[in-house]
Order: sequence, then structure tokens, then C-alpha cells
Amino acid sequence: MKALVIHAAKDLRLEDVARDPLGPGQLRLRLARGGVCGSDLHYYNHGGFGAVRLREPMILGHEVSAHVTEIGPGVSGFTEGQLVAVSPSRPCGTCRYCTEGLPNHCLNMRFYGSAMPFPHIQGAFREELVADATQCVDATGLSAGEAAMAEPLAVTLHATTRAGQVIGKRVLVTGCGPIGVLAILCARRAGAAEIVATDLSDYTLGIARACGADRVVNMAQKPDALEGYTAEKGHFDVLYECTGVAAALTQAIATMRPRGVILQLGLGGDMTLPMMAITAKELDLRGAFRFHPEFATGVELMRKGLIDVKPLITQTMPLAQAEDAFRVASDRSQAMKAQIAFSDA
Amino acid sequence: MKALVIHAAKDLRLEDVARDPLGPGQLRLRLARGGVCGSDLHYYNHGGFGAVRLREPMILGHEVSAHVTEIGPGVSGFTEGQLVAVSPSRPCGTCRYCTEGLPNHCLNMRFYGSAMPFPHIQGAFREELVADATQCVDATGLSAGEAAMAEPLAVTLHATTRAGQVIGKRVLVTGCGPIGVLAILCARRAGAAEIVATDLSDYTLGIARACGADRVVNMAQKPDALEGYTAEKGHFDVLYECTGVAAALTQAIATMRPRGVILQLGLGGDMTLPMMAITAKELDLRGAFRFHPEFATGVELMRKGLIDVKPLITQTMPLAQAEDAFRVASDRSQAMKAQIAFSDA
Amino acid sequence: MKALVIHAAKDLRLEDVARDPLGPGQLRLRLARGGVCGSDLHYYNHGGFGAVRLREPMILGHEVSAHVTEIGPGVSGFTEGQLVAVSPSRPCGTCRYCTEGLPNHCLNMRFYGSAMPFPHIQGAFREELVADATQCVDATGLSAGEAAMAEPLAVTLHATTRAGQVIGKRVLVTGCGPIGVLAILCARRAGAAEIVATDLSDYTLGIARACGADRVVNMAQKPDALEGYTAEKGHFDVLYECTGVAAALTQAIATMRPRGVILQLGLGGDMTLPMMAITAKELDLRGAFRFHPEFATGVELMRKGLIDVKPLITQTMPLAQAEDAFRVASDRSQAMKAQIAFSDA
Amino acid sequence: MKALVIHAAKDLRLEDVARDPLGPGQLRLRLARGGVCGSDLHYYNHGGFGAVRLREPMILGHEVSAHVTEIGPGVSGFTEGQLVAVSPSRPCGTCRYCTEGLPNHCLNMRFYGSAMPFPHIQGAFREELVADATQCVDATGLSAGEAAMAEPLAVTLHATTRAGQVIGKRVLVTGCGPIGVLAILCARRAGAAEIVATDLSDYTLGIARACGADRVVNMAQKPDALEGYTAEKGHFDVLYECTGVAAALTQAIATMRPRGVILQLGLGGDMTLPMMAITAKELDLRGAFRFHPEFATGVELMRKGLIDVKPLITQTMPLAQAEDAFRVASDRSQAMKAQIAFSDA
Repeated sequence: MKALVIHAAKDLRLEDVARDPLGPGQLRLRLARGGVCGSDLHYYNHGGFGAVRLREPMILGHEVSAHVTEIGPGVSGFTEGQLVAVSPSRPCGTCRYCTEGLPNHCLNMRFYGSAMPFPHIQGAFREELVADATQCVDATGLSAGEAAMAEPLAVTLHATTRAGQVIGKRVLVTGCGPIGVLAILCARRAGAAEIVATDLSDYTLGIARACGADRVVNMAQKPDALEGYTAEKGHFDVLYECTGVAAALTQAIATMRPRGVILQLGLGGDMTLPMMAITAKELDLRGAFRFHPEFATGVELMRKGLIDVKPLITQTMPLAQAEDAFRVASDRSQAMKAQIAFSDA
Repeated sequence: MKALVIHAAKDLRLEDVARDPLGPGQLRLRLARGGVCGSDLHYYNHGGFGAVRLREPMILGHEVSAHVTEIGPGVSGFTEGQLVAVSPSRPCGTCRYCTEGLPNHCLNMRFYGSAMPFPHIQGAFREELVADATQCVDATGLSAGEAAMAEPLAVTLHATTRAGQVIGKRVLVTGCGPIGVLAILCARRAGAAEIVATDLSDYTLGIARACGADRVVNMAQKPDALEGYTAEKGHFDVLYECTGVAAALTQAIATMRPRGVILQLGLGGDMTLPMMAITAKELDLRGAFRFHPEFATGVELMRKGLIDVKPLITQTMPLAQAEDAFRVASDRSQAMKAQIAFSDA
Repeated sequence: MKALVIHAAKDLRLEDVARDPLGPGQLRLRLARGGVCGSDLHYYNHGGFGAVRLREPMILGHEVSAHVTEIGPGVSGFTEGQLVAVSPSRPCGTCRYCTEGLPNHCLNMRFYGSAMPFPHIQGAFREELVADATQCVDATGLSAGEAAMAEPLAVTLHATTRAGQVIGKRVLVTGCGPIGVLAILCARRAGAAEIVATDLSDYTLGIARACGADRVVNMAQKPDALEGYTAEKGHFDVLYECTGVAAALTQAIATMRPRGVILQLGLGGDMTLPMMAITAKELDLRGAFRFHPEFATGVELMRKGLIDVKPLITQTMPLAQAEDAFRVASDRSQAMKAQIAFSDA
Repeated sequence: MKALVIHAAKDLRLEDVARDPLGPGQLRLRLARGGVCGSDLHYYNHGGFGAVRLREPMILGHEVSAHVTEIGPGVSGFTEGQLVAVSPSRPCGTCRYCTEGLPNHCLNMRFYGSAMPFPHIQGAFREELVADATQCVDATGLSAGEAAMAEPLAVTLHATTRAGQVIGKRVLVTGCGPIGVLAILCARRAGAAEIVATDLSDYTLGIARACGADRVVNMAQKPDALEGYTAEKGHFDVLYECTGVAAALTQAIATMRPRGVILQLGLGGDMTLPMMAITAKELDLRGAFRFHPEFATGVELMRKGLIDVKPLITQTMPLAQAEDAFRVASDRSQAMKAQIAFSDA
């Protein structure tokens, strides 16, 4: 079978790889859709990010849906042909953080398509995948594309659980890539009374608007647009920071009311921050990283029609044109989430 | 002008009362709609509840909307003819609990239509009302009936803030009167993944279903229906207890998972509870009482279409037939929320 | 070797039992001290409590310290002769609650000396015990008696973590048996500004005083003593309810300020509670049950001199007189915590 | 009467100022002790800090104790000669943050000795002070010097309430000036199991040790000393950051375990932070600023002997030598907290 293997920056190959054996508790899956994520793009465009660099060829991909083709020993609750969303989160279950109920901090995490550990953890962009049944969530009723959105949705749902209460709150979202727009969907679902979203692209802001933002601001065109939110020490209760850019965060901090919560999702490098404002307004800057139980939660919310991710899926390309998907996914003026169709259904 | 004055059980009179003067910071209002609440019914049917008894004639009512007719000195932001929702919550602002940010526990609260203090606090069921501008929330775009739902909605929004996080949680609502159904709307708005609702009336359960409950159970017909939720120490994360009946709570406790949160909204008398289960499952039984900032929040959520209370308004009766509204409001087989029209618009 | 086996109410026998094999990851221990707990007394005096009844002979005991005599394969960090506190908490590590970081709610818990499951889980009152190394906490520097207090201390530490913040708070403790007095120690250690303790025995109240209570009240002598705390809706922020008696809890509820937290530790049967007060004051009644990480925490706090349990150990009796320990432990006028010396050191 | 007035950097004058009239609800006070704080030193050494600059002469000082000399109309509960700790926190009580129970974020705060607003808020370093009775807390039994420590103690108590639970936690304190050492006292009082403190001065580290730190580290001598705490993603649950120096915070972040809480107390300028670590470990960086109810709490804890600040008071100088107090207070090799004696007692 074929897999998408990254060898170095701009060196993405569709290669033959061996099939995995099917063990107890596992499912054999025919991949349906795979979404191109920001970290996939980092490997593709730059060969890594920060200190994380490719040191061996690695199959990319961790946002996937699939159909069940074979059911391993001891697995119940699945049927052949069933659509599932496949979680890339594979914590060990026994380390100190797993034991404390923090599997996203697992010391031995084997998250699909990650070059953090060495050997790298191979990803899910392959025609066929063998996964633990516990990674697979029934996605019946969803399109394959929606099911493949379960992973980034889980990221923003997890961040939302880090926000404390959102109902009735005023929310700012800086950066309207897929994570920012999913944050809008989650904040609205969690009851936010007001959502303002910023970005530099009218294209993505249009989707942000369609996904429920009350107001969208193109900071390239109106760099002072947030100043109206700085009176009386600030306006917003919650910030989803999805740019990873210090300037965006600094500008946003001026609009946060005392005791406001900043959820840092954007993974950038070092950032220079106005600590005086953070201290004096008693802001609460919280990292949010990956997810675990939120993966199944997101699928359930989508299946019940409580979260609709369809507006985010802007391109679907056949496996043969996978590299086009990577190119277009890098362009915020025409793509939100580009997905690769590993099979037709 | 006319007001609805309760003198004793079943002795409700439409009487002439004097107009109040308009002071600084106040608005003169022409009442639009007034919803009949459970406590109004207690005064009407029984002359009070528990230790709270009528000791003098009292104007009833605390769920009202109105149109602005005159604007007092020093008030800005309102225009004549504007529809407002009027909060009955009038904390003192200076007692120890107000100072701590807990105005719903104000030691000197003057909540409309309450016989708890003596002299009683006169209510809002009158053709004309003078209220502080700070009590009035712009309801432009809502119907007068919706605006009059702001008060009970605030009760359930406040309870929801007491729940901690709701996003992705499994929620049980026992009792589908107006508070129970509004709890369903709030839980869904706050992101509940699953909502099961119980009552003894198919009529109210039908409205619960229309308002978003995933499953409704008539406990009169299926008394064992909740047993399926007791496996593995229980299923639900959050319970909105809206019956005030010990049997309902006890049955629900068996379905609560460890660390589940019980929000007690139903105001009954003493209740005999299975403390062994509460202790061993480390349940968290939290009272929820009234509201304050949630009043404005609820109006905002309604105006943005994020919460729709229209299915709850089952009767609207002219002031001349106010007593019929009280009678029908007592009958759960045909009424959810009965409102009185104090004026046409 | 000998073990203390309960066969039925008042039928406690010192019997020969077989030695257990020593497996990988385990330690062989020579028991030092065993504290008689309330649940041991229930088995001894009544053959059980509530629905939990003895259905087969069971070795009692779960509050024990011991010396290491043999070290199993793969165990490091222990030496022969070392004093350890032995946690009776043995969660499975894989059920849904263990996975969520709630091991005290483990679906397969094998807690020493418990007749809840059948077959019963055999206890630790035996001359020799084989335990997992993960159950054993270095107690060097403590007396064997102090080390055997780690278990009930863990119960009250866990309850304290359920209290939210305690620093600067006003605390009421109802019931001054060992759990109540340990609650006083924990509340003080966690920074309580004021601690009032009630009981019916001057003997236990004397120890409560010695352990840091600011005021102790014998409710048998001054039944109205708490009325001074009911002004302005109540005085106390936190209640450790250690009686399991409805009258004590009801009286205490009247002294709780709005939003106060009630920690229910006392395991009684059903209790009739003033729900109107719980709802209207928005009290927060939280069960607290067992512990897990708090066991090691308690040992560390004792070793650093930050919690001193010595005043609670009122009797130490040789194994041959174990039944005397059970008798005296039942008498609150002369015993707080009676311990059995399984060996000399 | 005399007051200590700062005119510009290094221009501190002991000047005659007029006595204030005594109004209803107020107390006239004879000052006892005044502690020199970091912000006082900033005004003295640099004429301000950050954007806050002296624009007119200002009486310094906000850490004071005093004796009551005259009692205004309507004040009860005080007697002449009584020692009180005087809180410099004077929120308006009516702004949106006061109403929410966040008086430390008052929009109209008149905090003693602050050049943030203009006209500046005059401070408390004067022989006689008229204060609201609500600012004054009975300090009977404390020395005048201890009572004057109530203000910085309140800062660290407030920060501790921002930490969430501390009992059993591992705590790092970076920077052992008065705030750092008081943080040690508070963390210990709140139940910290382990406290490690860092600084560049052996003198202050000696006091940190005397105040309960389990380990003190001179980072000037052992710059790599914290590396032992970085295994398994980090060791500490809570960090009190009291340096305001980016390098110290960055080094500390590497030692924080996932979900650790960083309390930022040090008021520096902008800081460049390793956001990748904050995000991936889901750290929680929380500002902590001033205090309000914690002022009285701190006095109560000192009076009960639960917190002992005496080791921090390293110099007491007569008013005539006030400038010496400012000079010595700037030197960490010989001073922790220098106080000025405004009167003998």
C-alpha cells in the first residue's frame, strides 16, 4: 500500500510501505480522508519546527477518518464498512501523568506523525492503517471529511475545557486558521455571548464569520481596531491565541479584562510579553496542548449537529495530488482546511 | 393604575394603586408581559410556602418586560418606546455579600414580589412600573413575551455557572416545569453532549424534547427507566434537580457518576437523602439560588438567537383574565409558562 | 503467622494463616503497628454497616506500619529494616476512573479489610504482610505508631483537597473522633484562620484543643452554642462533617455562610436535610471518600514535622490483647486512636 | 507634623504637612512603624518605575502600623492607644470590579503612596494619619513592627489564593526579597510539602531558610542547581516568581511540571518567555496584584502565631534617619525589611 512519507523539506514521496499485522484489540482500516495540519506543513515546508527536526523518513498525518475493513480478536462494537474517526493520541496509560488523568502529558506518548521522539512516530497518511479499537470513534452519519476534522476539533475542545466557564463570556480569537475557527465553533457551543475574531486574511475571516463570530477584524487593514476594547482595563474574558505571534498576543492583552484567561494554542518560539499588564490585571495565561477524551466528545457533538465543521473543509484532493494539498493548505487566501482523499467514499 | 394584589390564598385582586414618582437614575415603564412563576402560584394557591407567609397585601410578579415611557434624570442609553426586560433583583450593593461579588446573597435584597421580608417587597404585576435603569436591559428585537422570560432564564443560567464546565458533559434534568426546560436550553447552550429529562407529564416532556432534550422519560409510565444509567457507579456528570422532591433526587443520585455535580434548584422542604452514596461517590450537591449578572446575559443570548425560549410560552392572557392565567399555570397537562398581557404590544 | 480474623460480630480470632509468596515488585513486611478504625469497629461490634455485611471470615485492618524484611525482584529504594507506612489503597489502574485520575473510585478497588466486594478483601492485621512496593512509603524518622496514622491522615488530607482553598478560612468540625481531629490538623496545616470543633465528649475535645482547635464545644452540655454563628446568614466557610448524624449536620448548616463548603466524611445512613437552606445559601455539600496520592503526602508532612499526629495515639496494646484494643477504641471517653503492636519496635 | 515626601529621585525630605480633619467613620492614628517597600525604593532611587513617574511631590509609604489617638463619629470597636495595622487599599466600592468582588482591580483605587494616578495618592509615612476605620485591623498582641508587615504579607497571601490548592504541593520561590520570603511563609502555612527558594544573596537565603524553605540555592554560586528538577517534564507544582527577571522565570519554567501554576509577583518590564514550554506543558501563568480581604486575614494569622514575620524585620531606624532606612533597604546583603520608627512604641 501507499503512504505519504516526508524525507526532508519539500521532499514528500508517495511510497510503498508494508502492511501492519492485525493484533488483538485492533482494527484494520481503509483510510478515507486525511487533513493537512500546520505541523504537517512545517515538516513539508521546513523539515520541522523549533528544535523538532526530521532525522529519518516519516509518514505524515494525524487528522484521519477511515472505514473498518477487518476486526481484530476481542473487539466488539464495530462492523465492517463503518466510518470511524481515528484518534492519533496514544498515551502509555501507566506513566505518572497518565495515572493522574493527564494522558496528553504522557511521558511515552506515541502521537501519529511526530518527529519529537526518535525513532519518529510514523503517521496515518497511508491507504491502510491498523489502529487500536480504543482510538476509533464511530462516525456514522458524518461525511468522511467531517470525521477527519475530529482531531483539530479535539484540540480546541480541550482548550475550551482549559478556559473554565465560557457561558455568557466575551471571547477574542486571534488568528483564524483552522484552529482559530474551530475555537470559534467551540466557544459558541460553550455559550460565549460575544465572539470577536482577528486575522490578516479576508478569506479566512469570511469563514470565521460563517462559523459564528459576531465580528471579524482584518488587522492588516485596521491595525487599531481592538483599541475600542481597552477601556476600563479591558473587555474580553477569554482569549484563544492561535497565532503564536508576540505582537498579536501583546495587542490582545491590552483588551483583556482583569482576571481574563488567555489560552495559548499557537505554537511559536519565544515571545516577549508585557508582564506588567499580566501581573497588574491578574491575567491567567494557560497553555493548551493536544487532547484526549475530547476526541470522542467532538465526534459526538458533530454527530448531534451541535458543532458543524463543514464550512472549514475548503479542498479535497485525491491521493495522487497530495502534494497539491500541501501547497494549497499553506495559502490562507484560498484554503482553510485541505484534505486528501485516500479513498472515494 | 391597576395592579395584581394577593391578599390571601385564592384572594387575588386587580386593584388601583398609586403611581410612583420618577427619581434620578430611573425609568418609568409601561408593563408589557408578566410571567406567572411557581412562587406566584404558591402565594395564590397557598398564601405562601414553607415559613414564608403573606402577612399583608402584596403586588405579585417578578418576571416582566415593559416599554419605556419616561426617562429619569441622569439616565442615558434608553429611548421612549424601547422594550426592556426588567430584573427583579435589587441588592443593596454595600453589605458583606454584595462587596464580595455575591449580590444574590445580599442581606438587604429587595426582590420583587417576595414575602420573605416584612414589610413585603411589592412586585411588578402593575400597569406602570418605576425601576432603576440598572435593572432594565435592552430587549429590542425580542417579543415582549420572550423578554419576560429573562428572569427564569437567569435562574437557570446562574445554576449553569454553578455547574462548572458543561461542554461535552452528560446531563440529567429532573422535573420539566419552566425551570427544568430552561435548564435544558442552558445545558445545551453550554455544550452538553447528552441531555435526558424526566417528568410526570407528557405535555411538558414534549416541550422538553422540542427544546433539545435527547431523551425524555415519563417517570409515571416508566418508573424504572433510569436504572440503565446506574452501571459502573453511574452515568451523568451533572444533574439539574428541578422537582424539590426527595424521591426524584434519590433516584437520580443512583445515576450520577463519581464526582458528579447536583444543582439543587427545586425549593421543597426537608429531604431525606442517601448520604452514603453522596459520600462514597464524592458527589457535589450545590444549591443554586436566584441570579444577578445572568439576567443581562440571558437577554443577550436570546437576542442573538443563541437561546430560544418561545416554545415555553404556552398561554398569553389579557390582564382582565389574570386569574385564569394563575389557574392554567397550575396545570402541567396544558401549560408551561402562562403570561399576562399588561398591554397590547 | 498470626492474623486477626473477624468471623461475625464479637467473634474476633487470632488465627494462623499462611504466608504469602513474594513476587516481583513486592516487599515482605513485618507488621509494626495497626490502628483500629471505625469500620473495623463496625465489623467487630455489628458484623458490618449499612448494606455491607460479613459473609465470610475476613482479616481486619487497613491502618498499618511495618518494617521491610525481604525485597522482591525489581524493587529498588528500600532497605531491610526500614520502617514504612503501608497504603491499603490498591486500585486497578486500568478502569475508567483510574484512567481519569480518580483511583479512589476504581471499579475494581482491593482496599484492605473491606467486605464491600465478595470475596472480601483480606486486611493487614497480620504479623507478616506482602505488599506492592508502590503501596509502601518510607517512614524513616517517624515512630511506628505515627506511621500507622498515615491512612486516616490521608482520608482527611483528601477531604481537605476537596475543600478548595482553606487558607484564611473559618472552619467548623463536627465530631472529634480520629477523623475529626485529623481534619483539625489538616485544616490548620492548610491555613485555616479559625477552627471550631464540636463533640459530645470532653475527652476527645481535649485532644481537639491540643491539636489546634481555637474553640471546642461540648454539644451535650451547650446544645445552643452554635447559635452565635448564624447571624448574617452564617459564619463558617468550610465544614468537616465527621459525625454522620443528621441532627449535627442540620445544626451546622445554619452556621454556614452562603457558598460555604460542607465536606461529608461521616458515613451514616440516610439523612434528612434542610434543603431550603442548602439551596438558598447555595451551599456545596461534597462527599469525600478515601484517598490515593494523599497517603504519601501525609507521610511527608509528618516526617517534616508539619503535621503532628502523636496526640491522637492514646493506646498501644500487644497483639495478644488485640480484642481489648477493639473494646477501648469503642469508648470515646477514654480513647482516640487505639493501636495494636504487632511487633516491639 | 512631619511627613516623608519624595520630590524626585534621591530627593527625600522630612517636611511639615497639615493635619487632616477627622470625619465620620474615621480614626486618627499616631504612626508606629513604616516598612520601606520596593516601590518606595523605586521612587527614591529612580523617581518611579516603568511608565509610572513622579510628577509632583508625594508622601511615600503604604506598609504601616499605628496607635489610635482619636475615634471619629460612628466608629465602634476601637479604643484609644490600640495598635492597628492600616491597609493602604482603598477601593471605591461601586465600580464594576468592586461590584464583582474584585476590589484590587478597582477603577478608582486610592492606594497609599502611588504615582500611578494624577494627582498622586499621598502615602502614609507621616507622624499622624487619618484613616477609615474599615482600613484598620486590630493588631493587639503583635509588635508594631509585625503589624507593619501586614501589607506585604497580604500581597503574598493574595498570591497564594491565586495558586489554587497548595497543600501537599512542591513549591519553588525565585527571589528572596521580602515578597519571596513572605511567599515561603504563606506556602508553608498553606501546606506546601516542599519549598525550594533561590536568590543571589546568601544573606536573604539565610532568612528564607529560617522562614521554612526546605532548600535554598544561591544561583550566583550554583547556576545549574535547578537542572535536577527538570526530569520527567518537571518537578514543581507552584512557582512564586518574585524577581521580575526573565532569565529567572525561564530557568524556573523548565522545572515546572505539566499543569504547574506560576504566580507572577515580580513587577518587571517586558519579559521574553519560552512559550513553547508554557503551551506544551500547559502551564498556567497567573498575575497576582495587591490584595484586599487578605490584609485582615494576615493580621489574624500573625496574631494566632500561625505566621511569624519577625525574622524579616532586619532594621528599625528612627524617623530622623529615614533616609538611612532607604539606603540600607536597597542592599540585599544586609537588609531584608527595613522599617522606620515614627514613634517609640
